Order: sequence, then structure tokens, then C-alpha cells
Amino acid sequence: MQDRIELAVSTVVFSLRPHPETGELTLWLPLVRRIREPYEGRWALPGGPLAPEENLVESARATLQRTTGLTPRHLEQLYAFGDVDRSHSADAAGHARVVSIVYWALVGEDEDAEAVDGENVEWFPVDEIAEEAEPLAFDHGVILDYALRRLRAKVTYSPIAHAFLPEEFPLAQLRRVYEAVLNRALDPSNFRRQILAQGSVEDTGRRQTGTAHRPPKLYRSAPGRSRYALTIQETDQ
Amino acid sequence: MQDRIELAVSTVVFSLRPHPETGELTLWLPLVRRIREPYEGRWALPGGPLAPEENLVESARATLQRTTGLTPRHLEQLYAFGDVDRSHSADAAGHARVVSIVYWALVGEDEDAEAVDGENVEWFPVDEIAEEAEPLAFDHGVILDYALRRLRAKVTYSPIAHAFLPEEFPLAQLRRVYEAVLNRALDPSNFRRQILAQGSVEDTGRRQTGTAHRPPKLYRSAPGRSRYALTIQETDQ
Repeated sequence: MQDRIELAVSTVVFSLRPHPETGELTLWLPLVRRIREPYEGRWALPGGPLAPEENLVESARATLQRTTGLTPRHLEQLYAFGDVDRSHSADAAGHARVVSIVYWALVGEDEDAEAVDGENVEWFPVDEIAEEAEPLAFDHGVILDYALRRLRAKVTYSPIAHAFLPEEFPLAQLRRVYEAVLNRALDPSNFRRQILAQGSVEDTGRRQTGTAHRPPKLYRSAPGRSRYALTIQETDQ
Repeated sequence: MQDRIELAVSTVVFSLRPHPETGELTLWLPLVRRIREPYEGRWALPGGPLAPEENLVESARATLQRTTGLTPRHLEQLYAFGDVDRSHSADAAGHARVVSIVYWALVGEDEDAEAVDGENVEWFPVDEIAEEAEPLAFDHGVILDYALRRLRAKVTYSPIAHAFLPEEFPLAQLRRVYEAVLNRALDPSNFRRQILAQGSVEDTGRRQTGTAHRPPKLYRSAPGRSRYALTIQETDQ
């Protein structure tokens, strides 16, 4: 039985970047290599102990700034993980029990351009993490799975996917965000019809410049639409 | 600046009971009178420090059992509240900073029948709490407002309202749950049409016994419907 309970704040940061092999847009996140026990040498979510003078969200923001140089617009509390045995190290006893309050950040395309890697920080495509020989430190693999599940659910009932995009975007770009998050191809015309029917985006009246012969229309988030229901249909291809 | 950060788990417990004046079904919750500083004598959400050997949800369950005698089926984590100045007492310094991980419980009609009051525990209609001369202890008024907002939002996009009901229920009873949660009258035929269109309930083939000349049909939760969108329409009356 442990006497001390410590509090940490960690953050799951999702950004969309091309997959290193396929070139398709895919989910990436930054991890930090642990330089001390427990789990020395393993990858972990960015985070750290809650400082006495910091609010929870300030702690998440400070960690993000320190590890990635980013201050994402979309940062929200995800869940508190506090099982008694979650922070046990495989090799060493005597570490305090840690309860982690986890935030998640979604990084916009325009924001991601400003990302800088900190020391011992590396970005990974989400699907590569599961293939790593060594699991993430602590229960961070469980936390990452939970964050992915929540993200995949939430894009179907809220406009949260817009957080990955700049203010104005063609519908095809929004679809690619959904495809990256859900990790599967979607039927373009079904997607277009459903999104427009939901009223979560509105036509800006402008078209994308400097592109094709018939440049696509630009859309933006419609104000006041915080909830909707999307029945995601897969493409037949 | 404080050095120590303590962890507490508190729970917002919602149940539906008749309003003491109108007799209409309305939201109630149990509060605990504080018997020591800070905020001695004020009403607070049931809760307490996280014990070293307890998981978070176990702590919430133990508090509920101790204060209300209940072990509700529906208990989930709501949010962690941890602002630096949230636990300051109005009158005394020197208390540690407390981060509270808050759960919420929805008590089914059948469960509520087993509620027993603990010492210094009292149930209040939600709308009476705002009228109390003294605000709740700590930031518990803020937490209660947050829980109410979340509950009112969540009934429109998930079948969470079913948690207040026994396994089988007439649609009119489900409507009264929505009316109590949203604190307004709903148009019966619109409500019926929308709920049936969502597919979140299914006909049991049975009717309520021992009631009227034409006893109402009994419905139950349809399996696998965890999300839907309900456009709540008010009655014209």
C-alpha cells in the first residue's frame, strides 16, 4: 500500500501529417523519451507533475509549449486515470502512486507548421506506435487507445474535426480529415451530402485560389452547431 | 503559494422525485453538511479524500454507499476540477490545495426506493439549491451547474435518460424524465414520433398492468444505440 498520491497532467496531441509510406493524411502524435526510472528509455505522453501554482489546463499548455512549441487552439480535458496499480514500474518499487489528468489537443494544419521538436521528443504516426517493440510507459498505451476511441466517436456527433483545418476549407479536405481520423476511405458524394445536410458548415461564397481549372468552393464552420449526427458510410472502392 | 496538492473524489447524484410544491417529477440530489472548516455548516457534494488503496471509481462508490445507501448502476466520471484557488475557504488560510475528480450518478426509479439518508445528509430539489441563502461549499455550485449542463446536453444525443427508468417503461414515462431533466414541458406527440424514429427504444409487446382502461405499451432500451440526435420541441401549451 502506498501512502503518497501524486498528481500529473499529460496530454495526447493529435495532428494530421502525411503517412511516411503511403503519403496519405494520417494521425500523428508526439511522444517523449523517459530519461529516468520508472520506465527509463520508454516513450511516454508529454506531461509532468502538476505544479502547486498551476491550474490543470495551464500545466497541459506549458508541457505542450515545452515539448512541441505549440499552443493549440483546441485543448480540452479528456479523462482522469487513477487506478491504484497504473503507475507501477515493471522493475522498481517505491515510486509513489500517480493520478494523471489527461488533456487532448487537436492541432490545426496552420498550427502544425510551427511545431518544433524538443529534446527527447519525437512525432510518430499513430499506427506505428502499436507496432513498436516496447509498449509505452505506464498505462499510456491504454490512454492513447481511449483518446483515439473518443476522437473517432466525437467526429460523428460534433464538428470537432474542424479543429484540424484552417478557418476556410474545401469539403474534400474535410473528408480527408475524417478519413485520417477514422482510418478508412469514405464515399465522397455521401460524405458531401451528409455534411451539407447537417448544416455544420456554410459556403463562404469564395473558391480556393491557385489550384485547378474549376477551383473548389471554400466552406467554414457554421456558428452555433455544436452537435450533429453523422452516419459514416464507407466507400465501395 | 501552496506546496501540497490533495486529491478528492466527489459525486453529483441525480434522482427524480416529485417536486414538494407542484408534485411534478423533478431532479433531486443529496448534499452533505460540512462539520468542519473550511466551510463548516455549508452544504457540499458527497465526497472525500482519495484513499491510497482505492481506485477513483471505488472512492465514488464508497462515498455514495456511505451517504445514500445507494449503488447506482449508472456512475461515470464527469470532470476534474483543479483551479488553484477553487478550494480556498472564505475564512481560513492554510488549507491544502485540493483537486477534485468528480463522478456523476443517475439513480433509477427502482434504485431510488432503497435510498437511506446518512448522518448530515439531505436530499434537495435542484431548483431549491440556487435559492438557498448560502452558496454551496468550495466551488460545488459551479460543479453542480456543469453537471446539469452536461446532463441536459447528453439526453439529446444519447439514451442516458433511460438510466432513470426501470427496464421497461411506457413512452409517457420517458417523456416525463426528459421534462424533468430539461425543466420544461414537451409536446407528447412530437416526442413520441422523434423517440420512435431514433430507434433507441423497442416495443416489448407487453402493456402496463393494473392501470387504465387502455393500458400503455411498454418499451425498453434498444441494444446498440448509444448515440442519436433529438431535436427537443417544446409544447405549445
